[in-house]
Order: sequence, then C-alpha cells, then structure tokens
Amino acid sequence: MTLHVINPNSNETVTAGIDAAMDPLRGTGVEIACHTLSAGPRGIESQRNADSVILPLCARIAELEESASAFVIACFSDPGLFSARETTAKPVLGIMESGVLTALTLGHRYGIIAILPNSVQRHIRTLRGLGLTERLAGDRPLGLRVEELSNPDRTAARMAEVGRTLRDQDGADVLVMGCAGMARYREMLQTETGLPVVEPCQAAAGLAISRIKQGI
Amino acid sequence: MTLHVINPNSNETVTAGIDAAMDPLRGTGVEIACHTLSAGPRGIESQRNADSVILPLCARIAELEESASAFVIACFSDPGLFSARETTAKPVLGIMESGVLTALTLGHRYGIIAILPNSVQRHIRTLRGLGLTERLAGDRPLGLRVEELSNPDRTAARMAEVGRTLRDQDGADVLVMGCAGMARYREMLQTETGLPVVEPCQAAAGLAISRIKQGI
Amino acid sequence: MTLHVINPNSNETVTAGIDAAMDPLRGTGVEIACHTLSAGPRGIESQRNADSVILPLCARIAELEESASAFVIACFSDPGLFSARETTAKPVLGIMESGVLTALTLGHRYGIIAILPNSVQRHIRTLRGLGLTERLAGDRPLGLRVEELSNPDRTAARMAEVGRTLRDQDGADVLVMGCAGMARYREMLQTETGLPVVEPCQAAAGLAISRIKQGI
Amino acid sequence: MTLHVINPNSNETVTAGIDAAMDPLRGTGVEIACHTLSAGPRGIESQRNADSVILPLCARIAELEESASAFVIACFSDPGLFSARETTAKPVLGIMESGVLTALTLGHRYGIIAILPNSVQRHIRTLRGLGLTERLAGDRPLGLRVEELSNPDRTAARMAEVGRTLRDQDGADVLVMGCAGMARYREMLQTETGLPVVEPCQAAAGLAISRIKQGI
Amino acid sequence: MTLHVINPNSNETVTAGIDAAMDPLRGTGVEIACHTLSAGPRGIESQRNADSVILPLCARIAELEESASAFVIACFSDPGLFSARETTAKPVLGIMESGVLTALTLGHRYGIIAILPNSVQRHIRTLRGLGLTERLAGDRPLGLRVEELSNPDRTAARMAEVGRTLRDQDGADVLVMGCAGMARYREMLQTETGLPVVEPCQAAAGLAISRIKQGI
Amino acid sequence: MTLHVINPNSNETVTAGIDAAMDPLRGTGVEIACHTLSAGPRGIESQRNADSVILPLCARIAELEESASAFVIACFSDPGLFSARETTAKPVLGIMESGVLTALTLGHRYGIIAILPNSVQRHIRTLRGLGLTERLAGDRPLGLRVEELSNPDRTAARMAEVGRTLRDQDGADVLVMGCAGMARYREMLQTETGLPVVEPCQAAAGLAISRIKQGI
Repeated sequence: MTLHVINPNSNETVTAGIDAAMDPLRGTGVEIACHTLSAGPRGIESQRNADSVILPLCARIAELEESASAFVIACFSDPGLFSARETTAKPVLGIMESGVLTALTLGHRYGIIAILPNSVQRHIRTLRGLGLTERLAGDRPLGLRVEELSNPDRTAARMAEVGRTLRDQDGADVLVMGCAGMARYREMLQTETGLPVVEPCQAAAGLAISRIKQGI
Repeated sequence: MTLHVINPNSNETVTAGIDAAMDPLRGTGVEIACHTLSAGPRGIESQRNADSVILPLCARIAELEESASAFVIACFSDPGLFSARETTAKPVLGIMESGVLTALTLGHRYGIIAILPNSVQRHIRTLRGLGLTERLAGDRPLGLRVEELSNPDRTAARMAEVGRTLRDQDGADVLVMGCAGMARYREMLQTETGLPVVEPCQAAAGLAISRIKQGI
Repeated sequence: MTLHVINPNSNETVTAGIDAAMDPLRGTGVEIACHTLSAGPRGIESQRNADSVILPLCARIAELEESASAFVIACFSDPGLFSARETTAKPVLGIMESGVLTALTLGHRYGIIAILPNSVQRHIRTLRGLGLTERLAGDRPLGLRVEELSNPDRTAARMAEVGRTLRDQDGADVLVMGCAGMARYREMLQTETGLPVVEPCQAAAGLAISRIKQGI
Repeated sequence: MTLHVINPNSNETVTAGIDAAMDPLRGTGVEIACHTLSAGPRGIESQRNADSVILPLCARIAELEESASAFVIACFSDPGLFSARETTAKPVLGIMESGVLTALTLGHRYGIIAILPNSVQRHIRTLRGLGLTERLAGDRPLGLRVEELSNPDRTAARMAEVGRTLRDQDGADVLVMGCAGMARYREMLQTETGLPVVEPCQAAAGLAISRIKQGI
Repeated sequence: MTLHVINPNSNETVTAGIDAAMDPLRGTGVEIACHTLSAGPRGIESQRNADSVILPLCARIAELEESASAFVIACFSDPGLFSARETTAKPVLGIMESGVLTALTLGHRYGIIAILPNSVQRHIRTLRGLGLTERLAGDRPLGLRVEELSNPDRTAARMAEVGRTLRDQDGADVLVMGCAGMARYREMLQTETGLPVVEPCQAAAGLAISRIKQGI
Repeated sequence: MTLHVINPNSNETVTAGIDAAMDPLRGTGVEIACHTLSAGPRGIESQRNADSVILPLCARIAELEESASAFVIACFSDPGLFSARETTAKPVLGIMESGVLTALTLGHRYGIIAILPNSVQRHIRTLRGLGLTERLAGDRPLGLRVEELSNPDRTAARMAEVGRTLRDQDGADVLVMGCAGMARYREMLQTETGLPVVEPCQAAAGLAISRIKQGI
C-alpha cells in the first residue's frame, strides 16, 4: 500500500522536486510514490488553472485507489480537495491545509510565501473557508512566474526578502512555502530569516503517514 | 446586450423554473436570457458535481461574452464563481452570494433551506470563504433529492417545516432558498413562516442589473 | 410609486449631486425622487449630527410612505436605518450597507474613503454591528471638511491619494466612496487607482430597485 | 461633583428603582444622583424609542456637565452612548456595555435576560459593534411589556425560567439583567439559577466610580 | 533518539493505556517512550491541577532533553505547552492541539468528548487562545470522574451517548476524545456514531514524528 | 475586610510602585493592601516565569482568604487567574483583563505597551482566550528588560515613542500599560500621546471595588 503524492501540474521537474523532498519522510513503513498529472497545465497560476485539474485529479485518484493508503494533492491551492474526499474513503491531504496546520504547532503567527500576486486572494479565500486565518500574519508573493523559478539565485534572494518582510512587518514567527517543489530553498530560508520554515509537501506527507498509522 | 443566466445543470425543467422566476426582473431595460448547460450533470448534488461544471461553464461564458452585459451562475453552490470572473470582465454574480447579500438587507439573521444534507457543509465552507457567516442563523436541508422535488405538495410541506425550524430554533428572521428553480414556493413559504424569503436567482439578477446600470 | 432617496442633511447641493448620480439607475420602471431633509444639519460630521436626523428622517418617511415603493437613506453613516425600518414596511436601504454589499461582489477586500478622521470609527462600529468587517481592507479619511469639498481639484487629488494608499498599503481591490454626493469623482478615481469604485447612493438605489422588483 | 445617572425614559418608578439599586455603590466618596428624562417615552421598547431620547439626553448631559464627575445612561440599549461622549469630556458609561464588561470577569459565557423579543436583535447589533459577542451565550426575552413588570410574582417566575434556559440550553455561567430598574429581582435570580447576576446600573456606576478615581 | 510521551498525572494505569495506544505509531524509525510524572496529581480535574504540573513537567523535559527527538504532553488540557517550548528547542506537541489539528483534516466540524463538566470551559479558553474554535461544533462532558472511568461498560455507553449528541445536536462530523488513555474505546465509538474518532495521544505522536522527520 | 493586591514577582520596588498607584483608589470604604510574593522570580519575563508563580500565588490567596474582600493579581500576564478563581470564591481580578475591559470604555481600539518582545504573543494568546481581541489595535514592546526600567528618562522616552507608534501606525485611541508598577509614567504618556492611558493595577482595583460593592 502506497501514499500517492500527485502533482496536479504537468511539469515533471516540479514532480522531481517533490519526490526529492519526500526522502526524509521515507523509511516509516509507508511507501511514497510521486505522480505527475499529465492532463494538468504547465503551472497552476490562476483559479481557472486550479479548477481545471479537479476532474483529471479525481480520475487519477480513482485509478490509484486500490493501491493507496492515502493521497496528497501537491499544489498549494489544494485544488479539488473536497471532490477528492468524495472520490475515495482513503485519507486525502492538501498541502496548503497541511502546511498551515503544521505551522500552527511551530509558532504563534504564520506567514505564507506565495509565487504570484493573484495567488494571495485565492489562498486567503480557501483558508477562510477552512477557518484557519485567525493566526495568519500575512501572505506575500514573490512576484515571479513559475517558469522564472528556474533561476535559483534570483528565487532564493527574493524568497529571503519576502520572508524577512513577513517577519518584520507582519509579525510572522513561522513561514510556510506557498508552492510545491521548492524544498531545496528551505534551509536557506531558515538561515536567512531565523524562522522555522514548513515545506508543505513534507507536512502533508507527514500528516498522511500519521493518519495511515492511526487508521483514520 | 443581455444578462445571461446559466443553469449549470442539464435539467431543462430547472431552467424553465428559473426563466419564470426572471419575469418580475424584466422590463428594466436589461434583456435576460436563461441557458441550460447541456454538459452539466442532471443535478448538482455533491462537491464533485459542482466542480465538474466549471470548465464547460467558463466555455459557455466565453461563447456568450460578446453579447453579454453580465452573467448569473444559477446554482446555489456558486460553482466556478472565481474562475468565471477570470474568464470575463463583465459582472458575474453567484446566486448564493447574491441571495445572502440581499437577505442581509432584510433581516438580522438569515436561514438557508438546502436540498440535501451534504450541501450544508459545502455552503458553509463557501460562505466562510466569502466572510458572510457572522449573521448566519442556520442552514438546514430538506433531505429530498433534486428528483423528488417533482412532488410539489411534499416539497412545500417540508419546506415550510424547515423554514419554521430555522425561525424557531435557529433564530432566523429572513430565509434564503438554497436552490435554483424553486421560486414557485416562495409565496407559500412567506405565508407559512411569516418571514421574508429570498429567491436567489432573482436576487442575483437584481444585483446584476444594479451593476450593469452603475457601469461597474 | 416612487423610490424616495432622502439626503438627511440640509445641503441642497449634495441632494443635487445625488440626483445626478441617480440618472443611470433611471429607466427601470421605478421612479426615483431625491429629497433634502430641511431639518437636518448642514453636514453630518459627528455621531451627534447623525443621531440628530433620525426623528425628522422617520417623520419624512412617514409622510412619503403612501407614494413609496422603497426608501434610500443617503448618508454614509446609515443614520436611523433600523428606526426607519420600524417606521415603514417598505424596503429601506442605507448607502453604507448597500455600498459595502455591492463591493463584496466586485473584489476580495474593500477600502472605504471617508471624509473626516472621526468618521472612521463610526463606520467601523456600524459595519461590525452589521457583521461586514471580515473583508474590510481599511477605512481612511480625506481629512477635508464637507465644505472643503467644494474645491474639486483638491478633492480629486486627495481622493486619488487615499485610494492608492488603500490599494497599496491595505490591500483593497475595490473602493467604496464614504459619502453621498461625490459621484462625479468616480470615473477619475477608477482611472487613478485602476480599481472598481462603488458610488454608494447608486448601489443603494440598485438594491432598492432589485427588492422592489422581487416584491420583498 | 456628582455621578449623574440618567434614566432616559420618563417613568419615575423606574428611576426610583435605579436609585435604590445605587445604595450599595454609595459611600465611596462619589455622590450619585439619579434623574428622569422627562422628555423620554414611558418605556424604551423599540429602536425608535431608543433613538428618540438621544437629543434630550445630550441636552440634559450638557446642563449637568458642570456639576458632573461622570454620567451613566441607564437604559440597556445604551442609547446615545457615542453622541453623549461627543457632548462631554467626562466619563460616560452605558449600562449594557458595563454590565457585559463586568460579567466577563465573573464567568466564561454570559447570558442576557431581555424584556421584549425585539430587544434581542438591538442588543446583539450593539454588542457586535462593541466587539463583545465572542463570549455571549444567549440573549432571551421575558416576553413581558415594561408595564407588565408591575406584577412582581409573574416577573420573578418568568425571569427565573429564562435564566435557567440561558444556563441549561445556552451554557451561560453568568447572567446580565437586560433592563434598568430590576435590581430587586437580583437576589431571587441568583438563588433560582445558582449563577452570579449582574445588575447593569450597578455595574455602570461601579465602572464610573473606578474611572473617576483613576482620573481617566 | 526518542519521542518522549509524558503523562502529567501520576496514574500509571493511564500511562499504560497511552503506551498501548502508541503501538500503531511505532515502527516508523522513531522510538517512543511513555513516562509518568510521579509529582503529578492522581488526575487532572481542574485548572489548578493542570497548572500544578507545569514546573515538574518542565523539569522532566529538561532531564530527558539529551535523549529526546521530541516531546508529547499527554493531558488534554495541554498544561505547560508554552513553558515546555521555552524549556527545550525540540518539538513539543500538546494532545489537545494535535487532536484538533488532525480532526480538521477529517471533517468539517469537530466535537470534543470531555470527562468533567468543568473541563469544557478550560478547553474552549485554550482553543480560543489557539485560534481553533471556528469549526468547533461542541464540547460536552461525560460527567464521570477519572476514577469512575474504571467501569468500562458504563464509560463506553456514556461515551457513545455523548458522541451521538455531538453529532445530532451540534453537527459534529468528527470526534476528538478529550482525555488521554481512552484509546481502547475508539473503535466502539466509531461504530456507535459512524464518525471518525481522533485519539489525541496518537494524533500528537503522529505530528511529532512528522516534525522529527521534517527536521523542524 | 481588605482588597489584597498581590505582586507575583519578588521585587519590592515594584510592589512599592503598585502601592503608590493605589492611592487614588483609596477612601472608598475598601481597604487596599499590597503584597510581594517572596517565592516569585525577580521579574516575570517568560511564560515559564508566569507559570512558576501560580502555586505560591494560590497558596498566598488561601492564607489571605479570611481577611479578603477581593484579590488583584498584579502581573500583566494574569498568571494563575483561573486557578486563583478555583481557590477562593471572593472576586479575583487580573490586571491585563481589567486594563483591557476598562480601556474598552475609553476608546475604540486599544494599544498595549509591553516590556519585552516575547511578552506580546503571551498577551495576545491570553486575550484571544478571553475573547477580547476584536478591538485590539496593537501590542508593541519597549524592548527593555525589567531591570532596565530603573532609568526613568530612557523608559519614559521609549514609552512615549511606542505609544505614538500604536496611535499612528496601529490606530489606537486608548493605551494600556502592559506592566505593573509603571503608574508614575502615566501622566507623561498621556501628555506625549494625547490619548487616555490605563494603568492596569488601578483598573483592576477599580473593578474589584465595584464587585465588592455590588456583592458579586
């Protein structure tokens, strides 16, 4: 039985980044497999992109159901989270939800580093729907397109800058990376800001393993 | 230029009910046309049903764009509301959002009459996302399937019963019908409960006309 | 039958501005007449000014009742809103309430442009009472007296400045004009900020027409 | 210098009841004088009644200003609280506000015993405006008119019944009397419910004395 | 390195129950050891009991620090959670916090089964402090003392009854056991209510393992 | 019978400052005595410091019980507030709770001047638990250690600076001193900021006297 982590965009590089991020979560007795949703868009940059993956995502979940101990939807908008939970009785975790729930055990007020400006309102609308905004310090965008993230120095510098703003202006004492596939910047971000940083795919896998072990 | 009201399920009877409900809103100088989304499910009874209509709904909006002064999404889950707003710059109103906003001008605490038990959490999650739950008295289901609504006496009796429970146990002083196409029960429901009742398709059309006239 | 819009201050120039703002809302089959409350103060600049108009406003509503399809109270403090609703069974809309409800369909977080600094707490206290602060980005004053608004260039420049601050510092993506009779600045404000701007008298008239047509 | 307690209705019997309730608060070095607002209605039973007293109340405050150390507005709707604070720089306390603030030091969740059903929404709207509803257990009416309160046995029995409902169904562990002039039932109500009961005129006088002594 | 689970009461039977509950969480590569705080009271039945364990608990954490990968405080009041986090830089999880965070991934509204009536307000005060009450359906007590829990049939029957009340009257769709050491009733409770049930010690151990693996 | 004000730290200078602050509250017929908790730490600078005083504080309350009319816990973290309320049936007031409740009668939004940066989250967690954050403008630290407060010029200058920031950036219109024993800076702070300033020991004594007089 396998914990299936599904990247709902079609970018294999992102999936590879997620897969590498899973390494520390391996060795708990739960197999972890990462999948790319080939029907997904190249990146999820709008509400419409997010909504477009729901049906293929649910179809993929149905295909993987028999071999699954749980599922993780590895996109920070948690697209299709409640449709997926209607599709399978196995645990389904979203990475935004899981990243935030984990952050709540690490600090008093969490800050989110989003990719694009228009992601912010999408995040907040969803977090409000989940009843999780009471301790939200802020959600600020990098202002880089998914493709631009290919320049690691530029990405790292901007990420550290946004992290410091969330800390100093918004009062965040824990950060959540608002995107899948950025695990490789976590160490840098912790060093630059002095704050704990949650990589949300890891947080979701951790919660999935926890629920698998508990049998709920 | 036309206000396009799109019923996202494929049930022509529902569309006919919506169209009849539009009559009082006609004659304001805004044309109103009602459409059935043929690609939609027979009824929207789950989150997955709701999510399944988003892409065809946006496609239909794109087709109608040129002739449109505004759009109404005539399903009480407001499926695809934010994707639709990315699809067109014309006003897009959801009937849940509009029904609730209108109810807030009519009473202190609003009650929603849902069709199915599992709709309730979907409504509340969305309303929380919209920041509109502060004055929610309650959301209670008829417990009838969309098909069962074909027996008007049974539907009316149950609707009045749920309305009275929302009034007496939950403290609602205004009711919102949690479904499109039930306008013909409004009068009865007002009489039986003594409360004002918002028919949400009318409320959305009213807000759409208001925004068209204001040019925003 | 007529929609009566009552300006609760005694300034005829303000009433003329409101009347001009009504033009786009005319032609819906609902007559709109604007009235000046001669017993009102020259401007409503304090809580006490606002409270002072309630009794004469209710008296005026009672006089107009027979010919009324609905009423709009055209002062952004919504003075006497709930007393007016006890005075008549016809719809009564406040322009603050209506401006904010309309803004909620246009953006994620609304910003209010107030006239005077001491208006801000009055607005927020009322909005909190209405349960509508969840998506309030900010409420910032022009810092100009009602009389000073007679210099249109100064008013326009300051209004654009406050609008940009609401957008950039507070995160507003829709603006509400926090005063009656400023409709002539709407276009300028939209251009200068790139955000949709709600003129609250128009919003209230639009909601009133919607409720008249719905018969609730 | 005197703490002036103003009963905004014209019922001298109510004022006498308030005056008797002041006795335990006397002897602190602060003189307490109770006044009847002769221009007020016989009882405050609607929003319109409440709004009607604001101007004469402010006029009375202005007359008493010179001799005042502070003011209490002795009507549970706190009519004119913010207008009164614009009228004088001396402390002005409302009895609803003060009753609730005091109750928050006595229990986890407070229940309010209102007189009339239509008072409930007026209370809640005001309390929401004050940001004090988080720990509100419930607000339930006696369903007796102010005049009917003249039958003490009937009033006492109904008051105890409502108190027990607030305790058992709503989870209140402290009660606030939602009317001035009912101090004589406090002992009975505490005995019948086993809960501490706040008489709001006393609570307001206590807070006023506290602020006078602190010089703020 | 070991995950130390500390039962802050001195009841070894409770610790044995917690230890048994840990079995499904073992085998992840993280050692789990359960400890009894001998200085603790026999049961934690009041705020004072809860506060009394904080210093000895922190002392025990300091003693175990060197061998620790993380800590769980196994009492549903989360006593000393923030003092413990000042005592060690290793992860410290409370079982209330963890039980609720896990429940939020399982349902829309969670219900808590407390032991004693006076625990309820202690729980809610703490959950409000954590910003986690938005989706709280209810918190209802068994009304049994910790000692009485020794009669398993009586405990089970009452627990099922309270669970059904939380489901039917309060709208809970997931339950959290509000006490350590009751894991053996979980299966029964799930069967009797048809709802998923979170055993909070398991939830906390799961979150602790997740954080250990993530290195945060 | 005496109102016992207990300083839970062992610093006699702080107790002397509290005692001096009590002078304006004397002469109400209630004796006020100030006590130093010799078992307490030199200053309360962390959650652990705060938690460490609870048991000795409750022991002291038990010793003083017979002579007590009420108690004030004179540390701004309100340590042991609910344990103390389990220890005695006499009124127990915390200075944070009382300072904030009093501030709510003085302005629309309150700002807190904390001593140390890490106090801020402790305050907010507690205030959230009390349901009193709706009108919190901000809580900002002096960034001075308790010992450093011995330089009055430096303290005064920094306090005025923080007060102005709370006023200008956070919108506070009333300030609460977030520490016991700073009453001598109140006048200066009011002058420098133009805002009313609540000294929380005085506010708590005032509320205690009010409750003693009311007999609740």
